[in-house]
Amino acid sequence: MTTKQTIDFYFDLTSPYSYVAAEVIEDIARAGQRTVNYKPTLLGFIFKATGNSAPMMVPAKGKYSARDFARTARFHGLTINWPKQFPINATTASRAILKLAETSPSQVGDFTRALYRAYFVQGQDITTEDGVKAVADAMGLDGTALAAANNDEAIKAALRAAVQESIDVGMFGAPYFVVDGEHFWGQDRMEQLRRWVVEGPF
Amino acid sequence: MTTKQTIDFYFDLTSPYSYVAAEVIEDIARAGQRTVNYKPTLLGFIFKATGNSAPMMVPAKGKYSARDFARTARFHGLTINWPKQFPINATTASRAILKLAETSPSQVGDFTRALYRAYFVQGQDITTEDGVKAVADAMGLDGTALAAANNDEAIKAALRAAVQESIDVGMFGAPYFVVDGEHFWGQDRMEQLRRWVVEGPF
Repeated sequence: MTTKQTIDFYFDLTSPYSYVAAEVIEDIARAGQRTVNYKPTLLGFIFKATGNSAPMMVPAKGKYSARDFARTARFHGLTINWPKQFPINATTASRAILKLAETSPSQVGDFTRALYRAYFVQGQDITTEDGVKAVADAMGLDGTALAAANNDEAIKAALRAAVQESIDVGMFGAPYFVVDGEHFWGQDRMEQLRRWVVEGPF
Repeated sequence: MTTKQTIDFYFDLTSPYSYVAAEVIEDIARAGQRTVNYKPTLLGFIFKATGNSAPMMVPAKGKYSARDFARTARFHGLTINWPKQFPINATTASRAILKLAETSPSQVGDFTRALYRAYFVQGQDITTEDGVKAVADAMGLDGTALAAANNDEAIKAALRAAVQESIDVGMFGAPYFVVDGEHFWGQDRMEQLRRWVVEGPF
């Protein structure tokens, strides 16, 4: 039996569609007997590198998107309470995720979802070390250590490398998935991703 | 019993995702006991008015999209044979659709699909009067009359008005749908559109 490749899931914690994706991806992975490789990245650098821009930069698209974010969440049985601050810089939280990946990789998915819910549902600030610590502590993780990753040179380098990897792989927007060499962009491509991992290439 | 509103379906004949949408929309409308109002428009003017741009304008997105167009078609059991010429100016074909809408509105959907298949499946040129005539004639329509709409001042004005309407409604990309005042952008929002017309607002 050949080993099935993991699903690489690239996301930015400020991306509302990636929040929805984070809530749905484990179900798809399970259906396809795959595991998920959670890969935080930062869209600001990706937009700069690719010349792409956030939906909000086109006024008509921004107006539509604000409504579409919430409707897409509801479509999946989820809630978005639109955050006071948007977009955010997810550097600190992303470093905490990479730190956790070193010691407890199996908890990275749940920590990622806890950060998304803190930001998009509970209205918490996840941009600061205190904010990241609060989310981690509430999960029973070592919040102090994970928040401290914000000042850890090795982790800072790891995040820079992760951002560069996401650019190199071809990512231009979030969420972005790669499995078996096939690329899927957007939460709305997850049903195609599902068919791919469950039924095979099409 | 209140009258159910039609689904306004805005499309450009050069848009591959709109081709897929045109093939799927009648099934959704039927499921929701709605009818479809086919509304040709021209993305060039929409991009100019909104500041939006085609996916192909961002190289990384363009590279992805070329593959995604075809995969999305396959996902829906359809074929795309990538046209020699892309994008195309759909002015002549759009005028023919508007002309047909005056005399035989019930055939507009099938004519729209015939034009899409001619372009995206059979590799025909639908930018010329001869090309439009060929598609119409093959359907048993009066191709000569429909192609002649290209030089009909009233129809030319009607297309200008249709483009302006699509901009005014808030359209910034194709396909774009409006039903019951709710807006859906993208072929990938059609499952949300389906739930909307079948189960009601969510």
